[in-house]
Amino acid sequence: MGINSNKYTFGPYKKGEKNKITDVKGVRIGHVTLDDGDINTGVTAVLPHGGDIYNEKVVAAASILNGFGKSVGLIQIDELGSIESPIIMTNTLSVGTALTASIKYMMSKHKDMGANSGATNCIVTECNDGVLNDMRGLHVKEEDVIDAIENASSDFKEGSVGAGRGMISMNLKGGIGSSSRVISFNEKEYTIGTLVLSNTGNIKDFRICGDPIGERMYLARKKNKEEKLELENDDINDREKGSIIIVIATDLPASDRQLKRIANRASIALGRVGSYMGHGSGDIAIAFSTSNKIFANSENSIFNTQVLDDDKIDIVFKATVDSIEESIVSSIYHSETTVGRNGKIIYSLKDNMKNVNLELDI
Amino acid sequence: MGINSNKYTFGPYKKGEKNKITDVKGVRIGHVTLDDGDINTGVTAVLPHGGDIYNEKVVAAASILNGFGKSVGLIQIDELGSIESPIIMTNTLSVGTALTASIKYMMSKHKDMGANSGATNCIVTECNDGVLNDMRGLHVKEEDVIDAIENASSDFKEGSVGAGRGMISMNLKGGIGSSSRVISFNEKEYTIGTLVLSNTGNIKDFRICGDPIGERMYLARKKNKEEKLELENDDINDREKGSIIIVIATDLPASDRQLKRIANRASIALGRVGSYMGHGSGDIAIAFSTSNKIFANSENSIFNTQVLDDDKIDIVFKATVDSIEESIVSSIYHSETTVGRNGKIIYSLKDNMKNVNLELDI
Amino acid sequence: MGINSNKYTFGPYKKGEKNKITDVKGVRIGHVTLDDGDINTGVTAVLPHGGDIYNEKVVAAASILNGFGKSVGLIQIDELGSIESPIIMTNTLSVGTALTASIKYMMSKHKDMGANSGATNCIVTECNDGVLNDMRGLHVKEEDVIDAIENASSDFKEGSVGAGRGMISMNLKGGIGSSSRVISFNEKEYTIGTLVLSNTGNIKDFRICGDPIGERMYLARKKNKEEKLELENDDINDREKGSIIIVIATDLPASDRQLKRIANRASIALGRVGSYMGHGSGDIAIAFSTSNKIFANSENSIFNTQVLDDDKIDIVFKATVDSIEESIVSSIYHSETTVGRNGKIIYSLKDNMKNVNLELDI
Amino acid sequence: MGINSNKYTFGPYKKGEKNKITDVKGVRIGHVTLDDGDINTGVTAVLPHGGDIYNEKVVAAASILNGFGKSVGLIQIDELGSIESPIIMTNTLSVGTALTASIKYMMSKHKDMGANSGATNCIVTECNDGVLNDMRGLHVKEEDVIDAIENASSDFKEGSVGAGRGMISMNLKGGIGSSSRVISFNEKEYTIGTLVLSNTGNIKDFRICGDPIGERMYLARKKNKEEKLELENDDINDREKGSIIIVIATDLPASDRQLKRIANRASIALGRVGSYMGHGSGDIAIAFSTSNKIFANSENSIFNTQVLDDDKIDIVFKATVDSIEESIVSSIYHSETTVGRNGKIIYSLKDNMKNVNLELDI
Repeated sequence: MGINSNKYTFGPYKKGEKNKITDVKGVRIGHVTLDDGDINTGVTAVLPHGGDIYNEKVVAAASILNGFGKSVGLIQIDELGSIESPIIMTNTLSVGTALTASIKYMMSKHKDMGANSGATNCIVTECNDGVLNDMRGLHVKEEDVIDAIENASSDFKEGSVGAGRGMISMNLKGGIGSSSRVISFNEKEYTIGTLVLSNTGNIKDFRICGDPIGERMYLARKKNKEEKLELENDDINDREKGSIIIVIATDLPASDRQLKRIANRASIALGRVGSYMGHGSGDIAIAFSTSNKIFANSENSIFNTQVLDDDKIDIVFKATVDSIEESIVSSIYHSETTVGRNGKIIYSLKDNMKNVNLELDI
Repeated sequence: MGINSNKYTFGPYKKGEKNKITDVKGVRIGHVTLDDGDINTGVTAVLPHGGDIYNEKVVAAASILNGFGKSVGLIQIDELGSIESPIIMTNTLSVGTALTASIKYMMSKHKDMGANSGATNCIVTECNDGVLNDMRGLHVKEEDVIDAIENASSDFKEGSVGAGRGMISMNLKGGIGSSSRVISFNEKEYTIGTLVLSNTGNIKDFRICGDPIGERMYLARKKNKEEKLELENDDINDREKGSIIIVIATDLPASDRQLKRIANRASIALGRVGSYMGHGSGDIAIAFSTSNKIFANSENSIFNTQVLDDDKIDIVFKATVDSIEESIVSSIYHSETTVGRNGKIIYSLKDNMKNVNLELDI
Repeated sequence: MGINSNKYTFGPYKKGEKNKITDVKGVRIGHVTLDDGDINTGVTAVLPHGGDIYNEKVVAAASILNGFGKSVGLIQIDELGSIESPIIMTNTLSVGTALTASIKYMMSKHKDMGANSGATNCIVTECNDGVLNDMRGLHVKEEDVIDAIENASSDFKEGSVGAGRGMISMNLKGGIGSSSRVISFNEKEYTIGTLVLSNTGNIKDFRICGDPIGERMYLARKKNKEEKLELENDDINDREKGSIIIVIATDLPASDRQLKRIANRASIALGRVGSYMGHGSGDIAIAFSTSNKIFANSENSIFNTQVLDDDKIDIVFKATVDSIEESIVSSIYHSETTVGRNGKIIYSLKDNMKNVNLELDI
Repeated sequence: MGINSNKYTFGPYKKGEKNKITDVKGVRIGHVTLDDGDINTGVTAVLPHGGDIYNEKVVAAASILNGFGKSVGLIQIDELGSIESPIIMTNTLSVGTALTASIKYMMSKHKDMGANSGATNCIVTECNDGVLNDMRGLHVKEEDVIDAIENASSDFKEGSVGAGRGMISMNLKGGIGSSSRVISFNEKEYTIGTLVLSNTGNIKDFRICGDPIGERMYLARKKNKEEKLELENDDINDREKGSIIIVIATDLPASDRQLKRIANRASIALGRVGSYMGHGSGDIAIAFSTSNKIFANSENSIFNTQVLDDDKIDIVFKATVDSIEESIVSSIYHSETTVGRNGKIIYSLKDNMKNVNLELDI
């Protein structure tokens, strides 16, 4: 869905039909949201395509923008340049559960896996939702993860859903956001879709397309003195906790090296929205292409494949950065004010603006 | 224990008292071995010291020699240059279980973790023991992991124990091996200890201190035709499956960059024993120093610390390589012939030599 | 000098006395500018301190944000975590000349170098000034490089000087820019200084502290139709050529790993000013600390040293990003309209604003 | 030429017709040797093919095994996955000269380069030949570099020629060595060729196919006391100076990621011959494939290309390691006893064996 706004256009490129990552054909997203008192967490699954991912792997790369994070499965993505399982997102302490569930899911689909053939590289990414969620309670169960995978579809919600349920971004309620762009090469259209699990940044620094909306909120709030900010002053000044997970999908025939270059540009989008990749923010970007499949157990030793000319890649970089920037803002825009663990309230962007008597004219 | 041999000395440096990784003061190793019919697997825990590892982190680095592996926790080691939890070793499909167990263990020691303070970077490494073990059965339980951590001591066994129970190395029975070296700087002694979970390599290429013992076995076997090799010919010729996990501990004041350089030399030891870091072998080296602790939640912003002069590091490189080489051989030397899943037999080094009428004169 | 403006503050932190990289005590900058008809190029030298850099190396790291560049000496910075010679900046085709000059300079200071002792790691960075400069003429001479080193001082100019003479940034005249920040730990002040050789970005995307000044210029220009843009439309839309070299100096006791983390944040500053690390833009950040020296040929094997607590590093990240952002803008702000090769004119920011009837109210 | 021996076979794979890197069709090697009293140095050029390398780039990768080195051009190889100019080898202090010469050579072939089109990524690698060569005299001239490029052919010498003239390997005379292997996929043959500039290692550790020939020489020498070793005892025990440059060429359709994996295996060959990638040894491997060309200034945005199945790559790893191992031994085997700077004598392998009354039965 992204942001439908005349004020904020997030770059010049055409947006996809849904303005979501699922504009890349085949990509599916599934959410399981857990919302019950102190429990505010969930699972989001990203499926590169609707087929057998293990037997038809997608070309991929990961960029570790800030490695202070607990994501699982990234080193094999880099070594082999491929993804062969769903990408699971959840809270930091539930990564083990999600990993076991993902392993079981893959075993259920591949009866030989781990017996007479190798294991699978399962990918689990995470952000810390401990402010709003009783994370220590380990409330994500294996069946939640499998549900998220099995219910994945091309239609999905943004905001405080799935793994995004308990996330906080720019000191505002954050979560899942998505957007897409359509670009052309030699008169053929290609789609770049992005999805973020956004849990990072400080309100003071928050910008939308250059507009320092966060600073306005911060100053209005200080001036009005009507209420104090919901987070420690220290946090708001100089520290950036949480994390952000960024997934980039495309049907462009990009090689793993090119996908790495594309994923590396995620830091530019972070810079635009006001993040500085803070020490405690485990910032990870994963990019994959659905264009060239890698077939397991192939009889062929040499594959025919296609690859983009690096000299033409600038438009891909720009469209990706724009789409990520919009996805981050969208994750905030679509999140609702949430009452979490111990009654902690994190306000939505809209409610925050109202609280400080500012108009949200997106 | 390593190898006590006049024939094979594994370099000129003095060995530690136990000739094990636990010669580095404070390091502890714990095993839980699961051995019941088709179940041949287990857990090995490496504790950098006996205190509170989260609050007194050790300086560390990881070297991803071949990233075709499912180890967890490596990216944060590199970003922050530290380890803050036990290093768990187990089979590939049990990594999720081990991760959850490790998270629970850390939470039990830190009541605030994940609530009002951050999470911990838990480290789980793995090799595939699916030939001898019913790996799909997921027989490793969370309590096994916690037992391995809690029972860790400076005294431990090598061979087919702990995570090494189901491992195969050089087409021989492999598992856990360890060794150590003592070197001096400015008349002060420092210890380097290494431990491997060894599950890699082909018999044809296996060398001990240059001696092509594996080729002798292979040729004798071919000649005698008394029995056929236990693995497919194709495997023995050109493919290297399995993996190897290499842990390097030292009380030298090495920086994380220096530990990375040290860990990178693990490939040299692999070259010496006949491995070539095969495609399917996820080869990972993790190095840590117990010398400079990193204290969590310190009031100080600047720490005093010590660091080695890089110009003097060659002896550390050499002693580390020798110790790893001996550890790999030791993992094989101390392993027993094992009957595994579906009656599969993997012979020990000694029994293999006997089978081909060669004398094992170590 | 940076930007002295009430409108644009570039973050909340205190600026250093000169607001230049040379606020970090000991750092020296030297320029040699070549300006004669088709020749518009030069050399800038960054000296980490005024003493013998080879014998008192500084701790350092390099971040290769986009490796499409011809800089020399970066891999040893990473392997050894140190810098042992001046950092030279020049045009792309003169890197060999600058390297030879730097080698000769180091040999002249160290009579044994390359004979009975090792060589030195000389560092040469570059941007392509071929639009304004007859780069193929190789007009930079070895003596220019040595002059830049020998004339280096704590006082230096910004703008179209030294290596910056022929550079173009945001389709405006660019070059050398610098800024600094002062932060405190435990009541002691530390300085972070930055210097850029800026030759990257598109006018349409150019922002100062979020203000889309570049878009205003671009739209006004299009509207007025008084003159067409100096570069191809294609360039302005989607392509980013040139490059940027970013040097970060500090007297904070940061380790090489921490300096790498700091240097990695340079991409955030690039995101803020509107760059997206375009394909053709070789974006390199080099960071060093003057705090802990590494002494060559020391008799000691173990050094005492100091290191920052990573938990306190966020303020360093933020202050660095702010200082780099200001440095980039400063490089443009201080550059003059330049007539280059074949009469090519690249306008300064001020003249561009005037051309489109906009007021430059910095 | 490599080693023609029944005793030492360097693995099971078929050798190419010449047993040299030039068995890979199109690859050309050129030497210029400078040999005059104190001058013992030179240049070796590796041309990936005989055509226009800039306009028909080859897919490539570099592996920095030990970054204590001054090689130029590696970061762009990694960013773009390609090589677009000859690979030049020379002594450490002549890298600037070689770089300038290479730039001039490329400009002479491309009249627009650096004017209306971009520059080229020139690659210069180096080892320190300061023991035998008056390296400070900078005797390599630009015309020597251009001669080496222009005279390159498929026929070339090994040993103390070109850049190898002044090199020392395993405390023996070293230099240039080469070998090749032929492997098959789907009944089609592919060639892997390797070339080394070998200047590393200690005699005590030197092994050929596991045979500790170096230790035998060392012990015989000690026993005979007929002459003392040519190098400091300290050097022979624990330190490894010099460096090694390893070039791997193939006509296999390997991607840049796969070439990186192949190049990473060079450390295995180093381990086999007795090196441990010593601190002072800048060990660099560069791999390229002539199979898939990357065309500059193409009108197409998407290229058709071929890529190897990673699952079949083990044989490539093994054949490459064997070929590098043979190349290193070959560099020593073909070098002659050399009298260098200040009358310093470094004996050939053959003369060393004779000196200690051992037979060289290769």
